[in-house]
Amino acid sequence: MGKAADYLDFSNNINGLGTLGSISKKISNNIEVFFKYSEAEPILALELLAKYYGLDKKCLAWGNGATQIFFNLPRLLRKGRVLIVGPTFWEYSVANRRISESSVEFFLTKERDNFNIDLSKFEKAIKGTSSVYICNPNNPTSTIVDSKSLADLIRLNSDIDFIVDETYLLFRGDYPQKTLINKATKLPNLYVVTSLSKFFALPGIRMGFLVAQNDNIEAYKNIDIPYIFNPLANIIVPILLSDKKYISTTRSYYDIVRKSFFDELTNKFVGKLKFYRPEANFVLAKILTNITSTKLETLMRKSCFLIRDASIYEGLNNKWIRFSILSKKENNLLADKLFQILN
Amino acid sequence: MGKAADYLDFSNNINGLGTLGSISKKISNNIEVFFKYSEAEPILALELLAKYYGLDKKCLAWGNGATQIFFNLPRLLRKGRVLIVGPTFWEYSVANRRISESSVEFFLTKERDNFNIDLSKFEKAIKGTSSVYICNPNNPTSTIVDSKSLADLIRLNSDIDFIVDETYLLFRGDYPQKTLINKATKLPNLYVVTSLSKFFALPGIRMGFLVAQNDNIEAYKNIDIPYIFNPLANIIVPILLSDKKYISTTRSYYDIVRKSFFDELTNKFVGKLKFYRPEANFVLAKILTNITSTKLETLMRKSCFLIRDASIYEGLNNKWIRFSILSKKENNLLADKLFQILN
Repeated sequence: MGKAADYLDFSNNINGLGTLGSISKKISNNIEVFFKYSEAEPILALELLAKYYGLDKKCLAWGNGATQIFFNLPRLLRKGRVLIVGPTFWEYSVANRRISESSVEFFLTKERDNFNIDLSKFEKAIKGTSSVYICNPNNPTSTIVDSKSLADLIRLNSDIDFIVDETYLLFRGDYPQKTLINKATKLPNLYVVTSLSKFFALPGIRMGFLVAQNDNIEAYKNIDIPYIFNPLANIIVPILLSDKKYISTTRSYYDIVRKSFFDELTNKFVGKLKFYRPEANFVLAKILTNITSTKLETLMRKSCFLIRDASIYEGLNNKWIRFSILSKKENNLLADKLFQILN
Repeated sequence: MGKAADYLDFSNNINGLGTLGSISKKISNNIEVFFKYSEAEPILALELLAKYYGLDKKCLAWGNGATQIFFNLPRLLRKGRVLIVGPTFWEYSVANRRISESSVEFFLTKERDNFNIDLSKFEKAIKGTSSVYICNPNNPTSTIVDSKSLADLIRLNSDIDFIVDETYLLFRGDYPQKTLINKATKLPNLYVVTSLSKFFALPGIRMGFLVAQNDNIEAYKNIDIPYIFNPLANIIVPILLSDKKYISTTRSYYDIVRKSFFDELTNKFVGKLKFYRPEANFVLAKILTNITSTKLETLMRKSCFLIRDASIYEGLNNKWIRFSILSKKENNLLADKLFQILN
């Protein structure tokens, strides 16, 4: 079985290109950050983010991962009916269910629609809600919603707060065109949340940020807990944002491999697994044989492959799995092992 | 003026013995913690704390510094009139003022009482309040309240939540006898908060913990944000708690130097500064000359000594300063510089 390090981890949607080589040394050379007090927020990291996106820094807030932001937002936003586009990430619902004045509902996309949002139905479903959560591209379905249509919807429904999670949009070559970050600084009912941790393969340095109108950011900071970021953020973010090569290589790689891996998988697993065309750095699959997702996940784990049993997502059941797209070599190993187990 | 590193920092109440020598290497050897996902809480650190204190781990919660705990507690505890024993640390009032259903009041100890709590007055003052905050020993007054009397008061007032901050009690040889941690696991209205960061001189690895009855801890975790601790906690806490020598050396040193430094200062600054006998690792002083605390702080900073202008504390004014007790050599340098400036 071996140690954790021996597993091939397809379960966490982390960039398959791995962490930048220079990071370990940079951390080693800056251990003194742990020996002194920090400011209330990572000022340098926020300044660089503002510059990178061409934003006023008053439109930006830092999070100890996107998690901190998702757990803060429900306390800040309008209370009432919260609508979450699902099946999706657990944190949106868990964080909102803590608010006694709100109720949580799901707008579940359908298998027959390949889990794409039916925008005309969605437009009706949001009426009367107080806030709407959209992960774009969505986890675990790896579907994407058209940014223009989404922006129009947000503009037309100014009485609803929209929270858009763009963590996986970072993995796409069309990110600069599709991100709603620049719209978020102008629209009073839009909050864009992004995590840098998965894209830069640094999940232990939790780096999330929120973009919204400056008044909204001011209100957000008034409910946020200060001082609790990892002080490495100020050291690491400058390296990450300036590494244009890592960013473009990642995006080009995923733009190609999303399609090629999907085609390979679709051909290889006829009658065994059905795949949904991925728009992010991971794939959702439906099991067509008798095995359950839980059993398949266990068997894969025994072979040292970690995948995600997608039955944990509201709206899916024990016939669904999700796995990351990693390097071509690792993807092939995964496909071969899955094939072996399903035969 | 030089870089920050050239300052002698008497402003932050950090252990003057400095960080354990082995910590830098330990961090360098464990940088991979930043390359993987953590559990929702630092399980190993919490288990070791439970063992160290002989507690059920269900009575313990971790905080990203005591700060995270102080900002969470007002959302959990009874709402109403919040009474804070002052002058004291800003976080108790700032965190409580965010709760619209509560009002914040101070029970200000008096200069004529050497800032000690008049327990009979205090007993009356707490009637009708919903929660009471006591920092023990208190910052910035460096006074202590008798633990037995405090425990009795807490037991007799079961309709009031008591929050006791024991961060500076760690610096005393009588900590094991005086801490209310063991009482907190049994009393449903007592919450003991402790930060390890100052005692172990690791302010950048924010290590706080809360001890309370298991039902209270369960409720606390239901409002807390998961996953946001520094993953170094699991690596570092085992080293800290097992270093009996560092712990006992620190306590013996401060037990002696608190008295000797106070005596020296009192003799040296007759007519210039009045000192209050310190019960923690820092000293409060009243300026008896014409200079203001803000001016004195600035002049000291220009000479590369950082002290705290205590006019920021509700209940004090611009005639008060606070400084840490560091090594004997550093303490002498500080006293000489203060003397030079005040003459």
